Amino acid sequence: MSSTIKNRSIVLAVRPTGVPGNDCWSEVSGPVQGVAEGEVMVRVIYVSIDPAMRGWITDQASYLSPVAIGGTMRALGIGQVVESRNKDYVEGDYVSGMLGVQDYATLTPDASLLKVDPALAPLPTQLGLLGMPGMTAYFGLLEVGQPKAGETLLVSGAAGAVGALVGQIAKIHGMRVVGVAGGKEKCDFLINNLGFDAAIDYKSEPDLSEAVQRTCPEGINLFFDNVGGDILAAAIKNLAHASRIVICGAISQYNTADTVKAEVDYIPILYSSSSLQGFVVLDYASRYGEAVVALKQWMTDGLVRPHEDIREGLENFPETLNALFTGKHFGKLILKLSASN
Amino acid sequence: MSSTIKNRSIVLAVRPTGVPGNDCWSEVSGPVQGVAEGEVMVRVIYVSIDPAMRGWITDQASYLSPVAIGGTMRALGIGQVVESRNKDYVEGDYVSGMLGVQDYATLTPDASLLKVDPALAPLPTQLGLLGMPGMTAYFGLLEVGQPKAGETLLVSGAAGAVGALVGQIAKIHGMRVVGVAGGKEKCDFLINNLGFDAAIDYKSEPDLSEAVQRTCPEGINLFFDNVGGDILAAAIKNLAHASRIVICGAISQYNTADTVKAEVDYIPILYSSSSLQGFVVLDYASRYGEAVVALKQWMTDGLVRPHEDIREGLENFPETLNALFTGKHFGKLILKLSASN
Repeated sequence: MSSTIKNRSIVLAVRPTGVPGNDCWSEVSGPVQGVAEGEVMVRVIYVSIDPAMRGWITDQASYLSPVAIGGTMRALGIGQVVESRNKDYVEGDYVSGMLGVQDYATLTPDASLLKVDPALAPLPTQLGLLGMPGMTAYFGLLEVGQPKAGETLLVSGAAGAVGALVGQIAKIHGMRVVGVAGGKEKCDFLINNLGFDAAIDYKSEPDLSEAVQRTCPEGINLFFDNVGGDILAAAIKNLAHASRIVICGAISQYNTADTVKAEVDYIPILYSSSSLQGFVVLDYASRYGEAVVALKQWMTDGLVRPHEDIREGLENFPETLNALFTGKHFGKLILKLSASN
Repeated sequence: MSSTIKNRSIVLAVRPTGVPGNDCWSEVSGPVQGVAEGEVMVRVIYVSIDPAMRGWITDQASYLSPVAIGGTMRALGIGQVVESRNKDYVEGDYVSGMLGVQDYATLTPDASLLKVDPALAPLPTQLGLLGMPGMTAYFGLLEVGQPKAGETLLVSGAAGAVGALVGQIAKIHGMRVVGVAGGKEKCDFLINNLGFDAAIDYKSEPDLSEAVQRTCPEGINLFFDNVGGDILAAAIKNLAHASRIVICGAISQYNTADTVKAEVDYIPILYSSSSLQGFVVLDYASRYGEAVVALKQWMTDGLVRPHEDIREGLENFPETLNALFTGKHFGKLILKLSASN
């Protein structure tokens, strides 16, 4: 079968400086790689478009090695097994893992390739609320952030995949929740659809620190930061005593140079006996199961809701990735590469 | 009695920018303040010269309000009651508290004025190992830093009052200890007298990050930072996974401007799942007693040793304070104002 199928893939042509332009990427096409003993071939259906991708294409030490020049772009995705020479998989199995931005992934399954039950939830939701963003929100908020009822949470990137969930899970735990997002539509959505207590439209606020002070008059107890830059600086000026800053990401900084460097004034953290904690969700990989169970239950109970922004077509990967950095997306950003069955 | 005694005090004349020059201070002299009902008058014997003093004279929100222009310089000190109109104190009692840089402090005792037992240890040691530096090292290392046997600790300002104790307490807890200090004499002292495993002379190292990498080849598990600036930047480039940075102070930054602002690249903290925790010892005031007991026992057992640098004369306060910032001191810096009995 293999030899008759064509595979298209997006490969990294040159490392970007700043926002990755179209010239960073090449689309290459050729016959699919044959399936060797122990391998499976997966037809990729959806790939997840994530802020972490910007770090993966930077030549800088991180929690994963950089994507090589000429290598297929790394991406978490969901697909269906079309050929198996591995006893644990049969044709038709749905799987999730690092499939890459390509039509077909031929790989040796390891612990990171998970079987997906399509009856659990729609496949895009399994890349969103029940996928990495869900894991990130769950462990980042509950394990690292240690929320307490009655405390005030500020979350940046609040209309994004992780931020929206962080706010909803924080509401379940009795926190007062303030979200930061870009534009009135997103802010209204946070309050009217997700139950946030207040929202800051960073695009319309002349003074972010003042806006944080106004919406968090007793100070921030917990800041869950996906964005960095100006909002982190504003939050640090409004810390309550013994507050916690969970650094989940710094998307505002990822495109500022060829290596990511983001500076923060830490003196207010010292004076307020606060903490700043870095967080990489992979540290919690052994506990993803418990998060899926909890999130699915909350979804069933209507306490958290999935929200996806699904684009189509492998050739639209560069534009879709950039939508993340310009805020031109609303919900978990996913690229659909082929039909779901 | 009061009216016949003259009091000299050091008052803040103008707020400094940068290192406080002599023009920041005035020495004023006049009759001592009379002792009202409920008050005591204390002859100040020793005052503690601390990095925190630089923050106290900056017009910036901190954990204590700034010293006012024209106000007596705030200082922790030890003295002896010379007149009491308070039933809880008698003439001859030794006390410690915020006595100020002056010959005589007339004040209403509150919870922060503690009686001192001169038999416990020499008075300077009660301002050092058994005083604030001791409390700071004890709670900062043990409660905030959470040391684990076998881990590597890096401590900056290692020959200073807090840093030397942090290293010694870490050794008691089975850590590998690397100290950063200025000059060969201090570095030799850390290794030969205090049992540190290695020392970095920041004055002779052309590349601090390389020096940290060389002395902490498996990365830093715990960084106890009194200094900030270059050594913090170097430490952040050498973090082990899930490492902790305890920010106790940032003495290198205190004189850089009229408000303290110190920036740190926090991306490596994110990527290594590490944390940066601010620490103010006053948060642990209710538990000082347990620290005094432990430190006194370790001192008796020869596991920690006091080390003071005692200068003399109220008029030498400005120069003594500046010795802190230029590293021209060795051990807990104390200014002696009058005879100890």
